[in-house]
Amino acid sequence: MDRMDAVEGLAKRRGFIFPGSDIYGGLANSWDYGPLGAELKKNIKDEWWKRFVRQRTDMVGIDAALIMNPKVWEASGHVKQFSDPLVECKKCHERFRADQAGEACPSCGGGFGPARQFNLMFKTFLGSTEEAKNQAYLRGELAQAMFVDFPAVLQSMRRRLPFGIASQGKVFRNEITPGNFIFRTREFDLMEFEYFCAENEWERHFEYWLVEMKEWLTHCGVDAKNVYFHEIEDGERAHYSKRTVDIEYEYPFGRKELYGLAYRTDFDLKNHMESSGQDMRYMDPETGEKFVPHVVEPTFGLDRTVLVSMLEAYAEEKLEAKKSKSERDDEADDTRIVMKFPKWMAPYKVAVLPLSKKKEIADIAEPLYAELRRGMMCDYDETQSIGKRYRRQDEIGTPYCVTIDFDTEKDGCVTVRDRDSMAQERVAIEGLADLLLKKLSV
Amino acid sequence: MDRMDAVEGLAKRRGFIFPGSDIYGGLANSWDYGPLGAELKKNIKDEWWKRFVRQRTDMVGIDAALIMNPKVWEASGHVKQFSDPLVECKKCHERFRADQAGEACPSCGGGFGPARQFNLMFKTFLGSTEEAKNQAYLRGELAQAMFVDFPAVLQSMRRRLPFGIASQGKVFRNEITPGNFIFRTREFDLMEFEYFCAENEWERHFEYWLVEMKEWLTHCGVDAKNVYFHEIEDGERAHYSKRTVDIEYEYPFGRKELYGLAYRTDFDLKNHMESSGQDMRYMDPETGEKFVPHVVEPTFGLDRTVLVSMLEAYAEEKLEAKKSKSERDDEADDTRIVMKFPKWMAPYKVAVLPLSKKKEIADIAEPLYAELRRGMMCDYDETQSIGKRYRRQDEIGTPYCVTIDFDTEKDGCVTVRDRDSMAQERVAIEGLADLLLKKLSV
Repeated sequence: MDRMDAVEGLAKRRGFIFPGSDIYGGLANSWDYGPLGAELKKNIKDEWWKRFVRQRTDMVGIDAALIMNPKVWEASGHVKQFSDPLVECKKCHERFRADQAGEACPSCGGGFGPARQFNLMFKTFLGSTEEAKNQAYLRGELAQAMFVDFPAVLQSMRRRLPFGIASQGKVFRNEITPGNFIFRTREFDLMEFEYFCAENEWERHFEYWLVEMKEWLTHCGVDAKNVYFHEIEDGERAHYSKRTVDIEYEYPFGRKELYGLAYRTDFDLKNHMESSGQDMRYMDPETGEKFVPHVVEPTFGLDRTVLVSMLEAYAEEKLEAKKSKSERDDEADDTRIVMKFPKWMAPYKVAVLPLSKKKEIADIAEPLYAELRRGMMCDYDETQSIGKRYRRQDEIGTPYCVTIDFDTEKDGCVTVRDRDSMAQERVAIEGLADLLLKKLSV
Repeated sequence: MDRMDAVEGLAKRRGFIFPGSDIYGGLANSWDYGPLGAELKKNIKDEWWKRFVRQRTDMVGIDAALIMNPKVWEASGHVKQFSDPLVECKKCHERFRADQAGEACPSCGGGFGPARQFNLMFKTFLGSTEEAKNQAYLRGELAQAMFVDFPAVLQSMRRRLPFGIASQGKVFRNEITPGNFIFRTREFDLMEFEYFCAENEWERHFEYWLVEMKEWLTHCGVDAKNVYFHEIEDGERAHYSKRTVDIEYEYPFGRKELYGLAYRTDFDLKNHMESSGQDMRYMDPETGEKFVPHVVEPTFGLDRTVLVSMLEAYAEEKLEAKKSKSERDDEADDTRIVMKFPKWMAPYKVAVLPLSKKKEIADIAEPLYAELRRGMMCDYDETQSIGKRYRRQDEIGTPYCVTIDFDTEKDGCVTVRDRDSMAQERVAIEGLADLLLKKLSV
């Protein structure tokens, strides 16, 4: 089976990612994060925020409204230039991407007219009447809010160049999606910052952030050999950029975009300054010089980070015959699927597994589970054989399993089993939470 | 000055909350969270998720798409019944809320026609043609995704009743907003869960969650004397509810809704079961009985939590003459504004304040700041007098200030100053990070 199908199947089966609006037959390649996917996504989102905002002295975050004044999107060039070429069927009028449409309409067999540009911004209407004056857009990128709020951030936060403004959140593009699971969807989460600097320093910052983005991917457990840096040539870049590197990944369906790093020059701040008539300049506190800063923009797709993290974590392993009996449920069960997430990313950190449902074991296991759950995400599973339960925790990437058995009542000890090595060790319940937290922090 | 104006002014001045699209004259009472507001909001959001999802054994979270299949909103009753009565001016056709409009149109002086119902769902179009068949809605509540995904959660997560499905995220209502800062906006963040139980248990769970919601507010620093439980009478409740309690707050502009607790019966799951033809029932693993669970729904407005947390935290205090000289910048400076956020909620936990910009002090202060920032959110401020800097940190609610002075180089100690008591103590730099983390966890 293709790795993509395997991961998508596991994601649905194990509560990571469900098709959106599934009971109604779905909706145009939309997806919902289930209980484990919501934790995985949140762990990645929070780790990014910690690493790039909270732990850095040169970054501040904002959280802006999704719907902005339409003048923002006129000034940014999105109303005019944020579009894809589409062809329309002359017979049934359905539209398709020009670069992917064949000779004849797949819906009715009709012929296509010439390719035309269609805007990718989602429209809506504010207020109770659907008139042009009430038309607004769902944001097509996070960046504009960081430009529009730049003067307010400068004024309230006493910042000196270089510094960045970061943001995370939903973005909407009314694209025709090819349907590669969560690779390209019409609404998706981005994590991004605009890094403001003097013009003569942009190249240095560009190189710095290229390295940082690569190190972040390593931190997410992504093998560098699957990552490519694709320099986008003149004429191929977005309208605002003078240098762009696409950070691509070797997906099972081909080498495609994962992240992007763009040098946006002073294009956006200048446009907003002209369009709004507001001063968007920075004043150097030492020289007193006023100028419009230049911008380097690292963009991280959150859903794509989830996707590549799952693709990279996925492993099928043969179980050796010498492994402990508890690892092999029966003779047929000689392989395991294991999600080798970095520990910080795993949805559950620990699973509590009572060897039997008998009262003397449950009386230890249940309060232990409740106690551990106060400090780390835990699962509890008392169904089926211990071998099947280990397989289940492997499939959702739980780093540690804690097994309570019939000796526990006597010796006050449990078995802690490691996801990757499958090694088991006997440890005392007293101090267990601290021990697990220590193991998890490595 | 009115407390609301004071908090709104402080929010703008200190980087908590800016008017949205401000350089373009704003947009219909929309707001952006600035650097400190984004941290405050995230702290509340994360604390809620930790308390109600991660630490509980009876709750799982999901993170669903904002745009769902339109059939969801037909089945839920939102397309038909989610509306406000509006009146339209006969002359200029502008519309106003019927309960707030006067005799004549405030825009042109024209007269109003009879009140009519206008739907509050934001519309958009998926795909490239704006036809009825492509029409979709931005979600008007979080709840529906938790109902639609109920069968997928049941199947993947091995859950037994009672249990809850939680969610956080943006919701959109195309309302005419009265403009009370972030109290009512067209896009806003909710935190909510649907708690599924057997029909005969709903009252017990309803009472339980009422207490939990109250305790959460206490945890957020909200004085119980400002909170009211308003039982919504028959005929006043939403179409899906058999019992609703509005948790109201005494805002400076009147007593209004803060949170809500609704018993939604089996209304939603039943409607989706009928509309979709899918089995939405739960099977009791012990009796084998199949039934549609009933639902108790606690809803927490995130933006309103930010607002009441700021209103409650805001204090103006007289500084006593006996206070340390460093607290009083000059004779005129005899009051302070202080945001008394709970420590877990404060945007910055610590501020590092070098007493002078001289090299021997900066050489200690800068690396100390960088080190502390790895483990907790820190600010750094070397401008103006120490008294002014304490005032600035008080205004943004920073629990602890660390001052590096000319003795630090000799004795290896700094002064730690407490936000609320203004007490100062001299402590060693060695072990400072641990000491601060310990103080912050109390």
